Amino acid sequence: MESHGADIYTASRISGIHEDSIIDFSSNINPLGIPESVEIAAMNSIKNANRYPDINSRELTEAIAASEHVPSEWIFVSNGAAEAIFRIAFYLKPGKGLVTAPTFSEYENSLKLSGTDVDVYNLCEKNNFKINHDVLKSIDNTDIVFLCNPNNPTGQITDSSTVVKIADHCKKNNAVLVVDECFLDFVENKEKYSIVNKLQEYDNLIVLKAFTKIYAIPGIRLGYCMCSNKQLIRGLKSSGPPWNVSTIAQAAGIAALKEKEYVKKSVDYVKIQREYIVYELQKINIKTYESHANYVFLKTDILQLKQKLLKKGILIRDCSNYRNLSENYYRIAVKSEYENKLLIQKLKEITGMQ
Amino acid sequence: MESHGADIYTASRISGIHEDSIIDFSSNINPLGIPESVEIAAMNSIKNANRYPDINSRELTEAIAASEHVPSEWIFVSNGAAEAIFRIAFYLKPGKGLVTAPTFSEYENSLKLSGTDVDVYNLCEKNNFKINHDVLKSIDNTDIVFLCNPNNPTGQITDSSTVVKIADHCKKNNAVLVVDECFLDFVENKEKYSIVNKLQEYDNLIVLKAFTKIYAIPGIRLGYCMCSNKQLIRGLKSSGPPWNVSTIAQAAGIAALKEKEYVKKSVDYVKIQREYIVYELQKINIKTYESHANYVFLKTDILQLKQKLLKKGILIRDCSNYRNLSENYYRIAVKSEYENKLLIQKLKEITGMQ
Repeated sequence: MESHGADIYTASRISGIHEDSIIDFSSNINPLGIPESVEIAAMNSIKNANRYPDINSRELTEAIAASEHVPSEWIFVSNGAAEAIFRIAFYLKPGKGLVTAPTFSEYENSLKLSGTDVDVYNLCEKNNFKINHDVLKSIDNTDIVFLCNPNNPTGQITDSSTVVKIADHCKKNNAVLVVDECFLDFVENKEKYSIVNKLQEYDNLIVLKAFTKIYAIPGIRLGYCMCSNKQLIRGLKSSGPPWNVSTIAQAAGIAALKEKEYVKKSVDYVKIQREYIVYELQKINIKTYESHANYVFLKTDILQLKQKLLKKGILIRDCSNYRNLSENYYRIAVKSEYENKLLIQKLKEITGMQ
Repeated sequence: MESHGADIYTASRISGIHEDSIIDFSSNINPLGIPESVEIAAMNSIKNANRYPDINSRELTEAIAASEHVPSEWIFVSNGAAEAIFRIAFYLKPGKGLVTAPTFSEYENSLKLSGTDVDVYNLCEKNNFKINHDVLKSIDNTDIVFLCNPNNPTGQITDSSTVVKIADHCKKNNAVLVVDECFLDFVENKEKYSIVNKLQEYDNLIVLKAFTKIYAIPGIRLGYCMCSNKQLIRGLKSSGPPWNVSTIAQAAGIAALKEKEYVKKSVDYVKIQREYIVYELQKINIKTYESHANYVFLKTDILQLKQKLLKKGILIRDCSNYRNLSENYYRIAVKSEYENKLLIQKLKEITGMQ
């Protein structure tokens, strides 16, 4: 089984449907697509690809610093957020780590590769997969905690007061807290949830961000992380291959950060479409969990739902290989109005509701 | 001091000259530039950047396999050859490693980061920095050897019979041999030197390659390595971040491998231009070492040569921070006829020969 969504290439080989004809609900990418300015900047940058990229991504780092209101020395830019996760694990070699379950699998993968023992805090279905304050107990004996907010694949959000409590508890226990805010850009009133403004106060806090999702450029590979511990940031920079961020990614990132209106429009669009999907899924008796992100987590006893949809040209994320999940759980991205309607129609066909 | 060439961004900030106006002789990129088909493929791929890249780079891997005449299971594709170097070190955690000096610094950097003790085999100037058979003695007590062929920055080439002897000695000592053939594509009759046809025989042999230099796409980040030990290749794939190779890099690589004529033309062009540079440098009493690659290694007692050339808009690689080198050593790329003539003219001005 695949360990990630977004593998239209395998889905295409299995189904015999060309990858361009598969509608990919398995990856959570902004349905409005790449902003035109970003596409143009990326295309224009190709002519400079005969030069090495800036080894320090300086212009992009300065643009991120201005956008996030943090000093540029707090920023490490990476080949997708995934690279930042691995650098953190490889650089810190934490010994003992804590992840929630279910969550994005690369936290655990990177920790294990760095020789870290991984403890798991199980999120309970009966609590709608929300984090409880009892998570603090699990932190007493750990060196690093990964927290995904909103969580992938459940869509659940943790409010910033709880995240601050966790950061505080981590600090007292000499543990690092990594908060992955990659999907927070899709959340209404994200200021209520983001912990970026606490970076100064907590030098044990790392916030992860990606350009991948909100600017719809997973193919370009661009992410970053922020921490007020400058020594840690310097350590991340020197603990992996140089020239990790391509010329194209640096140019695309600089253009993307100017797209404030596009981000606002995207948040509004995703909210309306998410509400439509949830409403329609409930009508056909598919259980959903409250989501704040650009994807919907669901449970259904329809057998082989993924395979049935793939035959109809739609790829969704089967979540049965996540820790602490069994079969019957799936994640679907919020896509364009047309695509979302098509998904609902195909689901109705499968369930015999139409 | 910079640890690599190609940093026109720092050079620009120091000199006050815009980066577009600096002629970069410090990075060894094909002077014929990016093949048009590669540029077009990269540009066209941007419209697909809203999808995740194939996590396994399958189409590109199959194209490399066909081009190198090896099974695709022997190939790991990476975010530039630099990423392959770090994955090898991180995955193998060799304990004890051997590098030559001077050579590309990332072998040693990656080994040290993986907790490996690094021994150094010093190349002697009086032997024109060539590898001697006494290198075998240094291998008796090591787990991994990095060999750059032709060597960067010296340009010296090691013939394949010597490399095979080293591979053989490594095998007997349970050591891995990594041969970096990134610059071999610029060498006439490269078949005489390449060790790719020995991969089957030596499963302890890894050959590193890059698209960066010969196809002039350092900004796109694309390299790979090959080894007949499939378990090792699988290990490399799973020992770092997923989606390490961008959509753009995969598309550019597939297009590049069709450019056989361009590669031939490049080898011829570089040879003529290299001979011109060496001839002219000798006329102005600058000592050069025999080079087989697209760069020339030189020694001169002109004080502050790098700074003097930068004032004239030309960036060269000061090699004084390489292990086993002192001041007075520099590396210059073989560039276009026009640029090479300009370099010689500026050197003549500096030396007062004109």
